[in-house]
Amino acid sequence: MMLPEPPRERPVFYVNPLQPLKNIRIVLCGTAHPGNIGAAARAMRTMGITDLALVNPQRYPDPQALWMAAGATDVLESARVCTTLGEALSGTAFAVACSARRRDVAVPMVDARAAATEAAAIAVEQPVALVFGNETSGLSNDEVAACNLLGSIPVAEDFWSLNVAAAVQVFCYELRMACGAALQPDKAQALAAHDEVEAFYEHLERTIVATGFLNPAHPRKLMLRLRRLFARARLQVEEVNILRGILSSVTDPKGRRKPD
Amino acid sequence: MMLPEPPRERPVFYVNPLQPLKNIRIVLCGTAHPGNIGAAARAMRTMGITDLALVNPQRYPDPQALWMAAGATDVLESARVCTTLGEALSGTAFAVACSARRRDVAVPMVDARAAATEAAAIAVEQPVALVFGNETSGLSNDEVAACNLLGSIPVAEDFWSLNVAAAVQVFCYELRMACGAALQPDKAQALAAHDEVEAFYEHLERTIVATGFLNPAHPRKLMLRLRRLFARARLQVEEVNILRGILSSVTDPKGRRKPD
Repeated sequence: MMLPEPPRERPVFYVNPLQPLKNIRIVLCGTAHPGNIGAAARAMRTMGITDLALVNPQRYPDPQALWMAAGATDVLESARVCTTLGEALSGTAFAVACSARRRDVAVPMVDARAAATEAAAIAVEQPVALVFGNETSGLSNDEVAACNLLGSIPVAEDFWSLNVAAAVQVFCYELRMACGAALQPDKAQALAAHDEVEAFYEHLERTIVATGFLNPAHPRKLMLRLRRLFARARLQVEEVNILRGILSSVTDPKGRRKPD
Repeated sequence: MMLPEPPRERPVFYVNPLQPLKNIRIVLCGTAHPGNIGAAARAMRTMGITDLALVNPQRYPDPQALWMAAGATDVLESARVCTTLGEALSGTAFAVACSARRRDVAVPMVDARAAATEAAAIAVEQPVALVFGNETSGLSNDEVAACNLLGSIPVAEDFWSLNVAAAVQVFCYELRMACGAALQPDKAQALAAHDEVEAFYEHLERTIVATGFLNPAHPRKLMLRLRRLFARARLQVEEVNILRGILSSVTDPKGRRKPD
């Protein structure tokens, strides 16, 4: 009798969730101040994004850009200078026009978070551009129309002068978050088990009866309030041990030192 | 017979969802460059946050701060200069230590988004501080320990040099988002009704049969693919009218111009 063939194992692909960031291109249009180009490069680099295209920068290269990049020189060194937005978008499959304002334009408008989510999803497979305007007038309507989506950072109604590098920072941060970079909780410290915590509460109650703080004839809601406090703290094993050690030290005269 | 009393209307409170931002204080500790203080003020102001406290700034006031604030001078003018973090935190009920790194500290650590959500919830009723360290070494462990929570911006493992004003921008942005500033969709253009869209598909099919593009004997999946395209676009009433106008202009010789 032949044994049935074992089920074939399906290949497992290990995917780096931050991989889409390598498919993100930041495009800065007509930037006036080289310092902003450097600050944008730094903002990108902190979020793991390195592809920068500059459309008609007014002063570039410039020592001020290098200074403001604060070490993100690799981004500046590999940046491409283009003469048209079309050239900068070449090869990308999707472009987000990034703005701090609502505008009446031809493309759908969403907020920065939604735009980053969509951009990151497409960037899993295809290059995506995020396009930023110049310092004084932002993106022109023609520049926005060359994109697929308008991503807008909500700003105060009476002060929407968001610095271009700050806007790059927010969008790149949202892209990194969209790639699942949200912080994983710390490797959880083992929480104390129910029985351990209950034993602590009993120990606590005995102790404060002994010290005279809790009158068993009129307990009021003292234990309830203490339980509420410690429940909120989510006691860990070691913490219960510390607290019980303190309680023991209160009632057990062994090792008690005279006050200095 | 007496009429029953009409039900009393409960009072309606109109709450400004951005109100908690008025309860947010940004605290900058030991900032070295006045330009960063100005840029932080601008970042705050764009997000509707105006309460700034400076703990031992190295150079302040300074024209560079004013220049980088780019108009957010009200924030700088009302900023308080303090000599201790305790002084800057006075009156607040909750403080978030803001950092770009994981740290081994005494307070719980969450990411910037979770920290902002918690801070905004508390700021509905009580003042909350967000505390930022200096440019070179960030917050000291003692400074972090004076706070209730560590909020961390996820950064690239090989480049975590986030500018302090950029960090302020991200946290203030997250606070504004936490207050429900996410963009509401544009006042929806009325979508075309099912019948209108179906009538358009019929019109389209008739037209491309007439032009010879679709062979009714071998339709393959052409209409299905066209339907899929237009379904994705979610046609609006006016757009259906435009498209049908185009179709009519194809088959109706009236008004047809000779090519120039």
